[in-house]
Amino acid sequence: MKALTYHGPGRRTWGDVPDPVVRDPEDAVVRVDAVTICGTDLHILKGDVPEVEQNRILGHEAVGTVTATGPGVRTVMAGDRVLVSCISACGRCTYCRGASYGQCTGGGGWILGHLIDGCQAEHVRTPFADTSLHKLPDGVSDEDALLLADILPTSYEVGVRNGRVGPGDSVAIVGAGPIGLAAILTARLYSPSRIVAVDLARARLDAAKRFGADATLTVAEATPEAVRELSRDGLGVDVAIEAVGVPESFELCTRLVRPGGRVANVGVHGKPAVLHLEDLWIRDITVTTGLVDTDSTPLLLDLLAAGRLEVGGLVTHRFGLHEMQDAYDVFADAADTGALKVALFRT
Amino acid sequence: MKALTYHGPGRRTWGDVPDPVVRDPEDAVVRVDAVTICGTDLHILKGDVPEVEQNRILGHEAVGTVTATGPGVRTVMAGDRVLVSCISACGRCTYCRGASYGQCTGGGGWILGHLIDGCQAEHVRTPFADTSLHKLPDGVSDEDALLLADILPTSYEVGVRNGRVGPGDSVAIVGAGPIGLAAILTARLYSPSRIVAVDLARARLDAAKRFGADATLTVAEATPEAVRELSRDGLGVDVAIEAVGVPESFELCTRLVRPGGRVANVGVHGKPAVLHLEDLWIRDITVTTGLVDTDSTPLLLDLLAAGRLEVGGLVTHRFGLHEMQDAYDVFADAADTGALKVALFRT
Repeated sequence: MKALTYHGPGRRTWGDVPDPVVRDPEDAVVRVDAVTICGTDLHILKGDVPEVEQNRILGHEAVGTVTATGPGVRTVMAGDRVLVSCISACGRCTYCRGASYGQCTGGGGWILGHLIDGCQAEHVRTPFADTSLHKLPDGVSDEDALLLADILPTSYEVGVRNGRVGPGDSVAIVGAGPIGLAAILTARLYSPSRIVAVDLARARLDAAKRFGADATLTVAEATPEAVRELSRDGLGVDVAIEAVGVPESFELCTRLVRPGGRVANVGVHGKPAVLHLEDLWIRDITVTTGLVDTDSTPLLLDLLAAGRLEVGGLVTHRFGLHEMQDAYDVFADAADTGALKVALFRT
Repeated sequence: MKALTYHGPGRRTWGDVPDPVVRDPEDAVVRVDAVTICGTDLHILKGDVPEVEQNRILGHEAVGTVTATGPGVRTVMAGDRVLVSCISACGRCTYCRGASYGQCTGGGGWILGHLIDGCQAEHVRTPFADTSLHKLPDGVSDEDALLLADILPTSYEVGVRNGRVGPGDSVAIVGAGPIGLAAILTARLYSPSRIVAVDLARARLDAAKRFGADATLTVAEATPEAVRELSRDGLGVDVAIEAVGVPESFELCTRLVRPGGRVANVGVHGKPAVLHLEDLWIRDITVTTGLVDTDSTPLLLDLLAAGRLEVGGLVTHRFGLHEMQDAYDVFADAADTGALKVALFRT
């Protein structure tokens, strides 16, 4: 089959690799019907994720059709349409048994396109199929479901839920890329009073408006004073969600929250940040980090099927699966192409 | 009357000042029967708290007897024995109405010995008396109650409660001074499986053992590996409580917690710390900061009166009130004197 493989920093190939097969009784093999590219894949290609080995097939977000299952698999079978989620779960370790699947110590967690071959390919082997795949309801399109493989549950769980967004809250979302926009969408489920989106790019702020931001500020405009003025009572936001992954955006979040506020870091970071404890020690601030657990994926699928989660507009560019290299180019050059999520479909 | 006043970095005087009087209808004046010195007072004397003005009377932890009240005070009267808590609360602002008294925006918060004259004196004026003083039960001694003016509620609320210490948890407490020891005492209320105390000084680690630490490590010994071995399942501690106030101890805490763990900062910091987001972004870590609210003070007083909180041993040195300067010297030189808390009594 064809797949996108990593060959060290800056080097990717679309070429022939062996077809995946069931290796473990709990494996499934899934034919990839739709797949996307994540900002994390670009991190890998920069060399920021050194544990990714050469020749690794990248990709951890797909929708597909089961073609084979091991004898231990009980809940999906060949022909089932499934979501291949970024998180695999052994289902048995202490973390999995507490629904912290992202921290799985039994061989799961974020493994696809990271520690084992991923789904930017014609087929993918998915371990722990019963506890890692999600069967898709009929009414949900491949393209919409694809957004639930990573960015929707990540924004929801690691941003909105960790930040404890609540009714009436003022919320700042720093970064209006796919994750930030998905954070706007899922924050709205909790009826905040005001969502302020912050980004470097005007085009992304326009998108933030379309997704439901009540106010938008460029980074230069987003002073603590300006954000305080936009907050519900002038004291700062209740929740700041970091959706970029650089020290500056994290540090900005810590300046925007009111006393008692929460900073929920969602971004993937390659460098340390400065935590200004000399100011923050007294301010009752909570900072959270996290990898998505995907325990919310069934709920988000229900909301999507019920039409209560409007994800249209997140996918900006569509390709055939064999145009993988072009899709990477468009996605990597988002500042010029305006790409949010790119989707590739089996042709 | 006599009082301890601040005159810029390094300069304190014990001398004559005017007697305090009721100025506002909600004020009380309290005769100081017992008072202590806080590490924060030493920070002020170093010049770390620049908003403290010259001639300010320091001190925010006392036990005393009400001598006068304004006409708006309804719950205490002359002759009542009261705890003068480090936090004053207007009782009316949004924060107070949410029991976040430490963040009071109505003129309270940490004001005593900070923004208004404090209680290292023969008498002290206490604003918002109804919502700031705590009447003392008969069975509680002045010396024991004194520990509830700041360190017990601070350790409990900002350390143990923010860190969500729970039954069976492994807990690291970094810093075994008065706050760290009080964190050990109050963490035990939640039946953790193991408390590991970390400090530079062997003498303080011996004290930590007496207060209930199950294991003690010097800072040099407290590698992440060593602490993981002492944790309940080898993955690191569930909660790390920072009770020092320097970047190194905070950063150590972030290395000791397991995935999903909590770092509760209690220390008063004068410098920023490094937050290693490049490691932590994926680990589901929660970091909290906070100023005590003292909403737990009534509960802690009940526990003290019921004999369920054994604070004996926290006060190591006792003085007459007029020996204030000697008490400061002994407290400031804790490394040599072995001082934990010093208590000064009316003579």
